[in-house]
Amino acid sequence: MTSISELENIVLQMAKKAKKSCRILATLSTSAKNEVLLTMARELELQKDFIQKENKKDLASGREKGLSAAMLDRLELSDKVIESMIAGIKEIIALPDPVGEISKLSKRPSGISVGRMRIPLGVIGMIYESRPNVTVDAAVLCLKAGNAVLLRGGSEAINSNMALASVLQIALEKEGIVADAVQVIPVTDRQAVTAMLALEDYLDLIIPRGGEGLIRFVSENSRIPVLKHYKGVCNIFVDKYADLEKATAIIVNSKTQRPGVCNALEGLLIHRDIAGRYLSDIAATLQKHGVELFGCEESVKLSAAVTPAQEEDWGTEFLDLKLCVKVVGSMDEAVSYIDKYGSQHTETIITENYTNAQNFLVRVDASAVMVNASTRFNDGGELGLGAEIGISTTKLHAYGPMGLEELTTRKFIVQGEGQVRN
Amino acid sequence: MTSISELENIVLQMAKKAKKSCRILATLSTSAKNEVLLTMARELELQKDFIQKENKKDLASGREKGLSAAMLDRLELSDKVIESMIAGIKEIIALPDPVGEISKLSKRPSGISVGRMRIPLGVIGMIYESRPNVTVDAAVLCLKAGNAVLLRGGSEAINSNMALASVLQIALEKEGIVADAVQVIPVTDRQAVTAMLALEDYLDLIIPRGGEGLIRFVSENSRIPVLKHYKGVCNIFVDKYADLEKATAIIVNSKTQRPGVCNALEGLLIHRDIAGRYLSDIAATLQKHGVELFGCEESVKLSAAVTPAQEEDWGTEFLDLKLCVKVVGSMDEAVSYIDKYGSQHTETIITENYTNAQNFLVRVDASAVMVNASTRFNDGGELGLGAEIGISTTKLHAYGPMGLEELTTRKFIVQGEGQVRN
Repeated sequence: MTSISELENIVLQMAKKAKKSCRILATLSTSAKNEVLLTMARELELQKDFIQKENKKDLASGREKGLSAAMLDRLELSDKVIESMIAGIKEIIALPDPVGEISKLSKRPSGISVGRMRIPLGVIGMIYESRPNVTVDAAVLCLKAGNAVLLRGGSEAINSNMALASVLQIALEKEGIVADAVQVIPVTDRQAVTAMLALEDYLDLIIPRGGEGLIRFVSENSRIPVLKHYKGVCNIFVDKYADLEKATAIIVNSKTQRPGVCNALEGLLIHRDIAGRYLSDIAATLQKHGVELFGCEESVKLSAAVTPAQEEDWGTEFLDLKLCVKVVGSMDEAVSYIDKYGSQHTETIITENYTNAQNFLVRVDASAVMVNASTRFNDGGELGLGAEIGISTTKLHAYGPMGLEELTTRKFIVQGEGQVRN
Repeated sequence: MTSISELENIVLQMAKKAKKSCRILATLSTSAKNEVLLTMARELELQKDFIQKENKKDLASGREKGLSAAMLDRLELSDKVIESMIAGIKEIIALPDPVGEISKLSKRPSGISVGRMRIPLGVIGMIYESRPNVTVDAAVLCLKAGNAVLLRGGSEAINSNMALASVLQIALEKEGIVADAVQVIPVTDRQAVTAMLALEDYLDLIIPRGGEGLIRFVSENSRIPVLKHYKGVCNIFVDKYADLEKATAIIVNSKTQRPGVCNALEGLLIHRDIAGRYLSDIAATLQKHGVELFGCEESVKLSAAVTPAQEEDWGTEFLDLKLCVKVVGSMDEAVSYIDKYGSQHTETIITENYTNAQNFLVRVDASAVMVNASTRFNDGGELGLGAEIGISTTKLHAYGPMGLEELTTRKFIVQGEGQVRN
């Protein structure tokens, strides 16, 4: 048993070491960083037996604790999962390095040249739950952007996380880079999270990934900026000018392709002028795909597949083959519904009308607003960021998926020839 | 006397109204926003007598409370101050509107077009101390970027702040825009700040301006992201390859042009190889300008103008004609000093050596890093942002002066033709 003050001290010492390592990471060349990443990929391959041996301890104690089959599945570092971590590292090696880019360099009336240089954020604190592969994915992405990372995974994956971190540290040492760039906190009780969240002098950003409870806890207790999303309640508005074939393909894809993820569809709004001829069709199609439908009074009248929605259904993140359906009279009504029940994640309009498409893009407040495309496209890879470390539905710094660029910031640089201010 | 729960409710209701007004502000055209700003400028002129009458109440009670002459000076809304607020509004009208800009629009392999659209942040909470002109400057800048603003000024300026807000609201109403876009909280005790800082569902950003105590209080108690700087401890490193004429002009300007501001010089580092021939010269020059010098042992030996520094002098924000001087043996030593004693605000190297200039720009972690230019250039106007709402020495979202663009964010927009995800 570790006392709270001991625990705070462990976390503090790790954060200090991380901060110190930043100074080195910030000035590494792209090729030096890519070399480390390649060595990490090799070490994961070489140390597979060790990693899986440690992972088996977690799986065994997970079974003892009675974790669900789905939880155990997420916990397992199978050959396939390790291969996909290695493939992920290679993808990140191939991505361009954002650090050092100078933009907007121009002369000012005073004669000085002013520009902005992209630099790493510093130390990223990552707080996550079960999946141990996050340890590698997050560390590698942070490192490519020149950041140190302090990881705090869930108790059920502690042996796996410690093993993965030790393998990454071996790679750092082999490449002559300070091993403190990647550290996993060895203590998993919530006090370790609280201790982390107080260290504003050493950590520059916290990214929590997990259930809404964890994220609220982090958000409420952190003195460090937090990038997060609580949930994904995504909606599609089928405008009266929609191409209904496109609408059906997009709705089915958004709802059923992977219902358990945050960019899956949870609410369907249909314009009254087309509801009479479209609602029963799309409801029947969705029912064939196993989707349960909860709707407003009007939609219940239009389709036998729709049962009356309860007030608490609107805006629920089902993460399941369930969907709310509502008939709306106008774009205004659709936008108001999205404001009230959406989660600023992903919102789509289906329309062939130019002005309605433009208005929807401008008026809707969400991290991704789409015209005639599946909500499932809100993903770092699909939007062109390469890998993503998470998604933000708060507006500061990053809004939407966060890739390498979102793990950096920009400082001003000034090149003068002796100028002074008048 | 207002009870805490009443007070919380007042602030909550104001925040809710501000949030609601955002929906309207976000879609206003640039010309509509400029019209409002112009009307605001006109109303300030028209209502000058009313504003000054209210301001006199604050001045009178300030005198009663025994405020210093400097404090009373900052509090006064003289004709000149009102004119400069009006001139400030006209400058902001002339600035380009960042909202609506679409960047990085490109086709992805899936066929969707992905871009980023610049949008307002939403509701900005501004917490500030004595100067009532901040009420106008902040409101106008927030408004031009499409944001609502909830202002909480100091108790000593409450009548002035309420008067200014009411004049701005008259202008909003005359232009048919919701008056809730600009609100001043009528309660000035610290509980009003605490109440504000808890409203993460309604406020998107907090900007505190004032003493370090206020800023620490805000930072420690806020659930909302905070952009801030605690202090400005700016340093200049005179490299051994410096042009000493440039060095002297820049050092004198950085220290003496306006010693009481955050971008004034507080620490001077001189390379050992030139200290013998330069330190006594620059010390004598600074002494002639009335600057008191505190230095390391070596610099004390080199110049009679330098008295020994105490440990607490290093890294102090003097805001006065005082300066620390230290002889360093290398760029590494200079960078380490800056890491330890700087405040990530502004750091300058004086050098004619290309590689040293480049290394300094890359290695030093500060919101503005400069070569051969006065630290006094770290200012929104000088760096090309137009007006600024504050300066950030934290790295998330904005690092350095914050102008119109820093009061916005970007969302993803996706234009498809019916694409679904595989």
